[in-house]
Amino acid sequence: MAVSGPAASPGFGYVTPDNVALLVDLYELAMADSYLRNGMNGRATFALFVRSLPPSREFLVSAGIETALACLETLRFGDEAIRYLRGLHLFSEQFLEYLRDFRFTGDARAVPEGEVFFPPEPLLEISAPRIEAQIVETLLLNTLNFQVMVASKAARSVLAARGRGVVDFSPRRDHGADAALKAARAAYIAGCTGTSNVLAGMLYGIPVVGTMAHSYIMSFSDELEAFRAFARDFPTNTVLLIDTYDTMQGVANAITVGGEMASAGARLRGVRIDSGDLTAQSRAVRAALDAAGLRETQIFLSGDLNEYRIAEMLAQGAAADAFGVGTELGTSADAPSVGGVYKLVEDEKGYRIKLSTGKATLPGRKQVWRRHDPEGQPSGDLLALHDEPGPPGATPMLIPVMQAGRRILSESLVEIRQRCTERLVALPEELKHLDDGAAYHVALSPGLTALRERMRA
Amino acid sequence: MAVSGPAASPGFGYVTPDNVALLVDLYELAMADSYLRNGMNGRATFALFVRSLPPSREFLVSAGIETALACLETLRFGDEAIRYLRGLHLFSEQFLEYLRDFRFTGDARAVPEGEVFFPPEPLLEISAPRIEAQIVETLLLNTLNFQVMVASKAARSVLAARGRGVVDFSPRRDHGADAALKAARAAYIAGCTGTSNVLAGMLYGIPVVGTMAHSYIMSFSDELEAFRAFARDFPTNTVLLIDTYDTMQGVANAITVGGEMASAGARLRGVRIDSGDLTAQSRAVRAALDAAGLRETQIFLSGDLNEYRIAEMLAQGAAADAFGVGTELGTSADAPSVGGVYKLVEDEKGYRIKLSTGKATLPGRKQVWRRHDPEGQPSGDLLALHDEPGPPGATPMLIPVMQAGRRILSESLVEIRQRCTERLVALPEELKHLDDGAAYHVALSPGLTALRERMRA
Repeated sequence: MAVSGPAASPGFGYVTPDNVALLVDLYELAMADSYLRNGMNGRATFALFVRSLPPSREFLVSAGIETALACLETLRFGDEAIRYLRGLHLFSEQFLEYLRDFRFTGDARAVPEGEVFFPPEPLLEISAPRIEAQIVETLLLNTLNFQVMVASKAARSVLAARGRGVVDFSPRRDHGADAALKAARAAYIAGCTGTSNVLAGMLYGIPVVGTMAHSYIMSFSDELEAFRAFARDFPTNTVLLIDTYDTMQGVANAITVGGEMASAGARLRGVRIDSGDLTAQSRAVRAALDAAGLRETQIFLSGDLNEYRIAEMLAQGAAADAFGVGTELGTSADAPSVGGVYKLVEDEKGYRIKLSTGKATLPGRKQVWRRHDPEGQPSGDLLALHDEPGPPGATPMLIPVMQAGRRILSESLVEIRQRCTERLVALPEELKHLDDGAAYHVALSPGLTALRERMRA
Repeated sequence: MAVSGPAASPGFGYVTPDNVALLVDLYELAMADSYLRNGMNGRATFALFVRSLPPSREFLVSAGIETALACLETLRFGDEAIRYLRGLHLFSEQFLEYLRDFRFTGDARAVPEGEVFFPPEPLLEISAPRIEAQIVETLLLNTLNFQVMVASKAARSVLAARGRGVVDFSPRRDHGADAALKAARAAYIAGCTGTSNVLAGMLYGIPVVGTMAHSYIMSFSDELEAFRAFARDFPTNTVLLIDTYDTMQGVANAITVGGEMASAGARLRGVRIDSGDLTAQSRAVRAALDAAGLRETQIFLSGDLNEYRIAEMLAQGAAADAFGVGTELGTSADAPSVGGVYKLVEDEKGYRIKLSTGKATLPGRKQVWRRHDPEGQPSGDLLALHDEPGPPGATPMLIPVMQAGRRILSESLVEIRQRCTERLVALPEELKHLDDGAAYHVALSPGLTALRERMRA
């Protein structure tokens, strides 16, 4: 089906709480209308899961659950939406009436944000009247695929930085406004220390970070004058960009200003290098700062960084206190999508399974049981039916997060981030390395295996 | 500088007209505050341009200008934003007062949406008081980098489809909600015929397209029953997904339903194949439909498509009327960012230039002159200073689009799309091919060359 709507309102085109319900693939609404007309609105369960790891990834990080649940909780089809849908001359009046009163009333279970998970474990299970569960597919996938992608990518830079700070510098290359916000959120979950994105700071309470651009330096008659102006204007947060003209001359100017600040009772917080041989320059800059007594002045490195460059620079002895990572982090450049899917696994008639090659699904509601070795390191997961008993001592990873359309899990971003930090620390060493190839073991339970075989036959 | 804000409001975190002004890298605001304190708010011009083509691209398509201008026109720092910024204990009260009254009052020149452009031609030039021009950098780059990326990627599928329809199926893999909207918009500009995204349909008037999912078929006791239900519920827009179980049995069922529809005075609009060997299946399905007299029933192909697969399938004789393209289109998977930058080129003191290796800029406001051969095919561009005379008969590509903060260009999306279609048709053949390597010639004018040499020296 292909239908043209009324004339467009041009301009920015914001997604708002009033219109986000229409962020849906048309076919979801068409199927929902048909289900309604055919009396097919029994309870169904859909599982959201990733079939296989993206290239260069050895684990995924849960992120976006809170965002998704907040959407589900407030989802409404307002007057404008109903008017637009009616104008498509596609839907039944009965369905439009249904949408006018639409509320998501289902239950959800999820792997909490900040946890590590592995394909094909469900990240989220939705149990609801079939129409409700169907209509939210696009929005759930759009929300979770992206935040999982960024958190999983950012975790790699955080691991590579071995305790040093990693800051999200991605807004100018993120895919639009919402991506910039959610990239900051997901990166913070994964352990980034802050973001340059002020709106993410306001909406999520993420620490905001920034220095100055080369154009600032170039707007003054010389570098020293620019540094002095910035130190005067921001004495408690002076980080000077020293590579506009010549990095060693830049650090000399920064040292001059650092001395002047010290005389005035202030402190030069840091310098940033954004181009050239960052490893060699950072070592020379560190030596110069130390020789001048500015041992506490930090060094920030940026400029087309990713986890590989961070690891390489540190292996070569770079002197860095923090890294700014932009494009690669926000777009997950080496794997710019996560292939999460949302599949029917159970309905009022029983278990459901899809058999197509490469697109097979596992039937039924599930639980993921994670085993740990005595040191607390995960040693393998068991993917089971939700009502199978778990192995002794294993931890269930899916927990109830929404009941009858209301969130029953509320966590601060700081708690989530703390969880992720602990999980990354506890990861088996071979999964922490950047090189590909290590595989974490996810086994199917006897119950799930038997059910699948029975349904295949 | 790194500053923590107040506690976060959790949840979806929407970007709205009231808060979009804070979608800015912190350093833009810090620099702006410093400029204000130091009386440095003279008129400046910044150019937004792409330094070099992304991998596998031979041209770029202008997109996002309207979105960006709508933002500039309405940009405000509301009470919540000012409160948040004050709480960072970073900015001067003078600057916060300035932001409270902030309006963008500048001028803009741009390459209209739908035009083809080439690095390093400016896509947009902003002339405004320095602080205004500086503050909008992040938002402009975030908006334009993404829409240019998608339009340039989508144009490749449109060219590969050689007149057949290409539909945006990307929402579930796009990077968040705004990306899904803007991907649909940019893809439509590039010539896509529609989108699955209902919200994009409502906000931009883009035709919305959809069929059904495999789960719909599986929700009925058999395929034929599912097809009949759908045809009954959507008699004017019946497109049946025929590959859930077996494509040839699927088309047989579709033919049965098509016959029943014909008896009732309706028509089976199309069938969709989403998996397997699309080329071979589409030919067999076409033959079966034709043999049954359903010559007007169209065939839609989908499933991990991109421009290469479309070209390959058509070369092998696939029978397709339209293609659904998702992940690859919305994330521009082979080149998931466009490296647009925004650089100072002129201020109250004169021309400005940046000399760093790999990051050099060209000074001054500019004009791009495009020459055409007698057949109307672009034959090379001349990048000149804005006040240099252009070559006889050449077309100036940058036109005024905003004056004193108000848009002076208003185009419908349909007009923009029409322009893009014409430009893609007129492209030199070697740029239309998917293979890499052809290069369109962009020359520097004598005036620009001389100015650059003078400033380098």
